[in-house]
Formats: sequence, C-alpha cells, structure tokens
Amino acid sequence: MATAPSVSYSITVRLEVPASGTAVSQLTTAVESSGGSVTGLDVTASGHETLRIDVTLAASSTEHANQIVETLRGIDGVSLGKVSDRTFLMHLGGKIEMASKHPIRSRDDLSMVYTPGVARVCMAIARNPEDARRLTIKRNSVAVVTDGSAVLGLGNIGPQAALPVMEGKAALFKTFAGIDAWPICLDTQDTDAIVEIVKAIAPGFAGINLEDISAPRCFEIEERLREALDIPVFHDDQHGTAIVVLAALTNALRVVNKKIEDVRVVMSGAGAAGTAILKLLMAAGVAHAVVSDIHGVVHAGRPDLVGADPSTALRWIADHTNPEGITGTLKDAVRGADVFVGVSAPDLLDADDISAMADDAIVFALANPDPEVDPVVARRTAAVVATGRSDFPNQINNVLVFPGVFRGLLDAQSRTVTLPMMLAAARALADVVHEDQLNANYIVPSVFNADVAKAVATAVREAARGGAEAAPRES
Amino acid sequence: MATAPSVSYSITVRLEVPASGTAVSQLTTAVESSGGSVTGLDVTASGHETLRIDVTLAASSTEHANQIVETLRGIDGVSLGKVSDRTFLMHLGGKIEMASKHPIRSRDDLSMVYTPGVARVCMAIARNPEDARRLTIKRNSVAVVTDGSAVLGLGNIGPQAALPVMEGKAALFKTFAGIDAWPICLDTQDTDAIVEIVKAIAPGFAGINLEDISAPRCFEIEERLREALDIPVFHDDQHGTAIVVLAALTNALRVVNKKIEDVRVVMSGAGAAGTAILKLLMAAGVAHAVVSDIHGVVHAGRPDLVGADPSTALRWIADHTNPEGITGTLKDAVRGADVFVGVSAPDLLDADDISAMADDAIVFALANPDPEVDPVVARRTAAVVATGRSDFPNQINNVLVFPGVFRGLLDAQSRTVTLPMMLAAARALADVVHEDQLNANYIVPSVFNADVAKAVATAVREAARGGAEAAPRES
Repeated sequence: MATAPSVSYSITVRLEVPASGTAVSQLTTAVESSGGSVTGLDVTASGHETLRIDVTLAASSTEHANQIVETLRGIDGVSLGKVSDRTFLMHLGGKIEMASKHPIRSRDDLSMVYTPGVARVCMAIARNPEDARRLTIKRNSVAVVTDGSAVLGLGNIGPQAALPVMEGKAALFKTFAGIDAWPICLDTQDTDAIVEIVKAIAPGFAGINLEDISAPRCFEIEERLREALDIPVFHDDQHGTAIVVLAALTNALRVVNKKIEDVRVVMSGAGAAGTAILKLLMAAGVAHAVVSDIHGVVHAGRPDLVGADPSTALRWIADHTNPEGITGTLKDAVRGADVFVGVSAPDLLDADDISAMADDAIVFALANPDPEVDPVVARRTAAVVATGRSDFPNQINNVLVFPGVFRGLLDAQSRTVTLPMMLAAARALADVVHEDQLNANYIVPSVFNADVAKAVATAVREAARGGAEAAPRES
Repeated sequence: MATAPSVSYSITVRLEVPASGTAVSQLTTAVESSGGSVTGLDVTASGHETLRIDVTLAASSTEHANQIVETLRGIDGVSLGKVSDRTFLMHLGGKIEMASKHPIRSRDDLSMVYTPGVARVCMAIARNPEDARRLTIKRNSVAVVTDGSAVLGLGNIGPQAALPVMEGKAALFKTFAGIDAWPICLDTQDTDAIVEIVKAIAPGFAGINLEDISAPRCFEIEERLREALDIPVFHDDQHGTAIVVLAALTNALRVVNKKIEDVRVVMSGAGAAGTAILKLLMAAGVAHAVVSDIHGVVHAGRPDLVGADPSTALRWIADHTNPEGITGTLKDAVRGADVFVGVSAPDLLDADDISAMADDAIVFALANPDPEVDPVVARRTAAVVATGRSDFPNQINNVLVFPGVFRGLLDAQSRTVTLPMMLAAARALADVVHEDQLNANYIVPSVFNADVAKAVATAVREAARGGAEAAPRES
C-alpha cells in the first residue's frame, strides 16, 4: 500500500533562495512533484539579494523526506540550511511536566503546602488510610508501567526508548479524561520483579495501566497484580483493544443486521491483544470462534498443543474455541466466516479470501502499520472494513477506551476492573454512534468526539458501583 | 515555648449573626481575646435579619482552633455553620498534577505526540540511549522516593500517609527550580527491595531524591543505589540538611570572626542528618568535633561501641571524632565548645549550658518542632542562634538547598553527586548573604530569595563539570 504524506513525517527545511528569478515559485512544485505536501511556507528573512524561507512539509517516510530535501537542494540557486523534524522538536525536553496546583509565594503558602501544616494531613491519613484517596494525588493518578518489551510494533526496545510512548499516553490521559498519569519505565523484564515493583509503588496511585509488556508475561503480571492490589490493574494492549473491537463489532453487526450469537468469528493472532479480544467477544455472546496463529488454526488436536501446559493462553484457546475442530490455515478458516479480526501480521489475506467469506462480511484488519489485508481490496466484497490506521475509515484506536475506562474507575474509587465493567464500556462506546449516524464507514466515533470519554466513564463508574446489569441499553 | 497563631492552623468558620446588635463587632474581639488572629472576615450573604459571615482565623494548634470555635459559638445570637480547615482544603485531590506540554486537538497533534510519529523518537533513543536525556521527561525529572519510615517528626507512618509531604516536595522542586518531580511512595521497608525497586524505576528519571527513610537503612540504600545507578542519588534528610548547616556555619563564623579549622564543634544526634552534617563539616575543615547521642558522648571506648561492627555510622563517628577522648554527657561536652549543632530532641540544654560555652558561641538547635534549647534563652549568651523553625531568625531549611542542587545536577546531566559538589553548594548558599547583609540574625537567606536556587545550581553544575576547585570564592 502506498502511504500518503503524514504530519508524523513533517519537517521544516530552511532555504536561502535568490530574491529574483523563479526559484521561489519552484519550491512548492518541487515538493509536490516529489510526492510531498507543503503545509507552510514562511519567509523568515528578506533582503535585496536573497530570501530565507522555511518550508514545512509532510512526507510519507524518513527516506521520502530525505529525497524531498535533496530535490529542494537541487533547485538552481537554492542553498540548504537547517532541516528540523517537527516530531522531534515536539519531543525536546519531554512532552509532559509536573505542575503544582497552588502557588508557593509566601511563608503562609509554604506552611500549608509543606511543613508544618502538612503534618496534620499526614496524620489524618495515618489514622484513616482511605483519606489518601481524598487528600492526595492518589485521588486522580495512574501509573503507566512498561518494561519496554513490546513497544508499539517496534519490539523489545527497552524502558528508555519506550518513554516517549508512555509520555504520550500520559498526555492522552490528561487531555481526554483529566487524569494525572506518570510513566514508570522499568529496567527489568523479570515477571516476579515487575510484580514486586508495581506492588511496592502502588500506594501513590489509584490505578495501574500496564503498557507494551510482551506476552505471555503480561498475562501473569496482570493476574498477580490484580490479586495483590486494592487498585485496578488494566493492561491496555489487551483490554483497551478488546473493548474497542467489541464496540466496533457491535456496530458493524448493527450495520449488517446480524446477531453476535449467530456469527462465525475467525481471528488471526493469539498474542496479548488477540486473546483478550477473543475472551471479551465470547463474554459478549460470540459462540462460534476460530483462532489462527503463525502455526495455523488452533485446535485441541494440534501437535504443539497436545499435552501443553493447561495454564497457557493458547491451550485455553484450544479448549474453548473451534468446537467443530476445523484444521488447516487461516485461509481455510475464513472461508464462509462472518467476521474476521486480525491482530497479527501484514498481508495474510487477499481479495479471494475476503470474497470467500459469508455475505455481508465484516473485516477488522488491525495489524499496524500494515493490515492483514489491504482495506481497499477487502472493501470490494466485505460489507464493513476497519483497520488500526488513521488514513482509512473506522480506525480501531485504544484512545477511544483507556481514558474513559480509568476516569470511571477513579470516580468510583474502584479497587478492581471486571468483565462487566469492560462490557459496559464497549456498549457505551458503541452507543456513542447514534442510529442515524451509523453506516459501514462510521462504526466507531472519532477520538476527538468529546462524548466518548464521558460515556465510557459513566458506564464504567456505574458498573463499578454495581449498576452494570441495571443500566438501560439504548439500542 | 508558647506558639504564635500560624496559618498552618488556619480555619474558616461560617457564622449566622443577627444583622442588628453588637454580635458582629464581637467576633474579632472574641477570636483575639482567645489568642487567635483574624486574617479575613467576609460577609457572604446579607438579609434584613441576619448576616452570614465567614471568619478566617489562625490558631496555634488544633485544640486552640477548637477552643476559638467554641468561644464564637458562645456569643449571644450567633449560630455556627461549617468549619473548614484551610490546610485540608488545599490538599483536597492532591497538590500536584501532570500536565501535557502540547495541546492534543487534532489528528496531526496526535500523530506527532503519539502514534505513528512517536515511533521514530523511540527508535532514535533505542539507537542512542543518551538521547533519552534530550527527547524525554528524563531531561528534567526527579523521583521523590520514600518508604514512609521517618516522615518529618511523625515517625513510621507508612507510604500513603507520607504522600502529602512528597507532593509538597515535588511542588517545591517545581516552584524553586523548575524540576518535574513525582512522588514514589513504597509499600516496603526492606532495604534490598527498596534498592531493587529504585534501580528498576530509574530509566525514567534524571535523579533520585530519597526522603524520610529511617537510619541506618538510609545509609545503605543510598550507598548501594549510588553504586548501581548512572543518575545522582541524594538523600535530602542527610545531605540537604548538611549543606544548609555548613552554609549557615560558614556565615556564623564570619559573624564571630572564627576559623572553621579552629573551632570545637559539639553535635547532638547521630542519626541520618547528624552523621551527614558531621562528615560535611569535617570535609569543610572542622578538626575538633565531638558527637553525643542518647547514650552520651561518643568515644572509642564507650562500652556499646567496643567491638561494634566497623561499618556502622556510630562506629565511624567513634573512630573519626573526639580525639581527646571526652566522655560523659552532652552537657559535659558543650562546656567550652565554640559551636553546638543539635539534630536530636527537645530541651536537652539550658541557659547554664549555653553560658558555659566559649565566648561568641554559635548554637544551631535544629530539633523540630521543639529545639534542643529555647532559642530566646540561648541568645542571651550565644552570639549566633539558629533553629529549624520559621518563627525565629536564621531558619535552617532544606528548601534552601535541594531545588538548586538538583537543578545543577540535571543541567550538568551529572551521573553522581559528590562531596566537592556539596561543598560548592554550601559555599554558594553562604555567599548569597552579602558581606553588607551579614549579621547574627541573618546568616542564611530567605527561602523566597530568588538568587538562592540559581546560585546553588550554578555552583553544583560547575562542580559537576569539573570546575569546583577553580570557582572563585567571593569572601
């Protein structure tokens, strides 16, 4: 798939250009004929002989940006100055900061914010530890914890290289849900150590968002922390993804007028996200699920699973899906299926595979940045197509979920995050798309829709307070 | 010592008062005759019959505040409404927050702050880990780490009850030095565990401020972390205190015109702060030091120290101080001494003890909230007196030190904090008090003096870059 120029590959190129002649007028043409897109052209200094011009442009990759710079350099009379990368500029010194809510300008301020006044607040919490949720940042704070072992699609790049993602996540928590999150990047990938560390740092936080921790360690870490802690622990790569997929599927099924109980769902990928999606879809009513991984369709008789440790995720899948005992490859499995959900690898399916699915097929090809099937190709025969990309309709994006989920958990002062809460979150997210807005190209709302976080938070808060079952369903 | 009304015991009392009659005029008189101080009187609603008045007042303790409320309630015609504690109000929901430096309003913002643009920044750091100090919050962030074992003078109140102090500290870091600090309150008091946890969370921070961890564990924790980490580790209760004491002593000696090499220093307290002060004073030139603890003067032949583990702080003190082999009590030791430094317990010395010191004695009675000797009494014969309290001249306050020290360390991207840096910090702090300002009641600058953090930061930064020895001395 050709990639369109994106602001995430946006650079500003400083050029000295002759004041007379055609060089100035050639700049934009040169960028655009190279496949780039000019988003700004500022004359930052002007003289009789030369102009200094900052050209800001979007390219589709780093290499592409370099090519465009070379093209600009080649224009007669143009000399090249500094090239700045806007994304890097935005990261200088970090993307987040700590702020004091109260100015400390006088002795009086100091004696209330700090000593001696603070001592009374400490003693109040020592007497009644629950007061920490009222009188401290614990009221509103989430630790974004990673070990850097599975960062985006970049793999095991370690805790320092993971920091920009965790800061971005913290910024999103604040922007969309007013939550004070702080990145905790761990210099260990040992399961026991991570569990002990997160347990130890928990007193200052009201929730733990696990992030970009590789499978299968992420399952055990989450499970053990949930058992040990009195604050909710949520691995976003698993459950955030699962919730948005369930919401999208709910609406896609409304578009094609099928029932979740009736459809056959084929999934590609049995990692952290795949397993969580499967479990949530099944909890929501999916009765016919088949999962395929790199070794083909998962079934109880598959040689690598016979006698496998029953506690592994893959063995659980073998035991709980595919009752018909389908064998073979992913391509075999999707034949006749109603729904395909991929969280695996690029280009596993082609046009024939999609056209061999059932009528009104639903295709969620979520591998990033390159989906399991070209969405343009899939859309020729499938009724609804979604991806993880922002340059196609129906982007399945966790940002729709985690801010609202944690807002709801924090507001309810919940000590756990449960299946009913996650189902409620998915239902609320689906319901943000009203009946009169719903169509094949709009099954999930925009991440900038201000209703999203509120709706999800309300649903989670009510579920946390025991109102999950009683909450009325809109559609 | 009687305590003056303080804003740290400030309350707002809502009263309904008859519109006619003398009740209104009695309110202020009633508060002040009870020993309180009215700082605000707001009529928040007015009618023909009654006024609603919010009286804000400072008391000297919680009990005192309650007494004043009862006095107000007793005024004829007055009915009492809600009583709010200003310090608690200020703590509601916590004193700090996380803020995103960039607005996230559009898809373009999202694609630079988060995916997909962030991936390039992550990869740049994965290739060159040092870039984390440029492209992430690690540039400017400090973890304020405690286990809640020795919080202020409150003792072992645990990590949640310690949180208000750590938040206050974070707020001070930002206010005085622009540093982004975040509280990490640990739910363990095991030395090995604390060392492992702090090592593991280090990738996201440029410095570790250990806080309110009890002795002797604090020594080992700091030492092991300094060895293990490539970022500076600074236990503020030790070194922050030591630096401000050395600065204050430097200026006190200028006032009395004595040399640090010549004076006999007697210390009371051999805990974390006492040991660190002793070591820094000796590094600065103190040659005659005697330390006393709860069992009396420390000397090599003291029964509890004969055969003691040579790695303990107390054994170190026995081996490195008191060459004359003085024995007995603190009162014996201070006789004839030039300097007393107490970081121990209230009311250990009286007027006779201070008058038995050498001429032009210097007394730093730093036990909080009640000093080792009443400063008013000490000042009758001593030339210079300092305390830890804000209601006497010469407050020895760590706030003078830790923001500037960390600012300097961060700006130098220092991997350690060393003795030369601490000596430079103390010298710079002392020099903020100019020769023409210096007198017995002004040996340290105000914490709100804007020059303090800058001067300390510059000194530490230069020392970190190897310029410590070359830096010129002002006086």
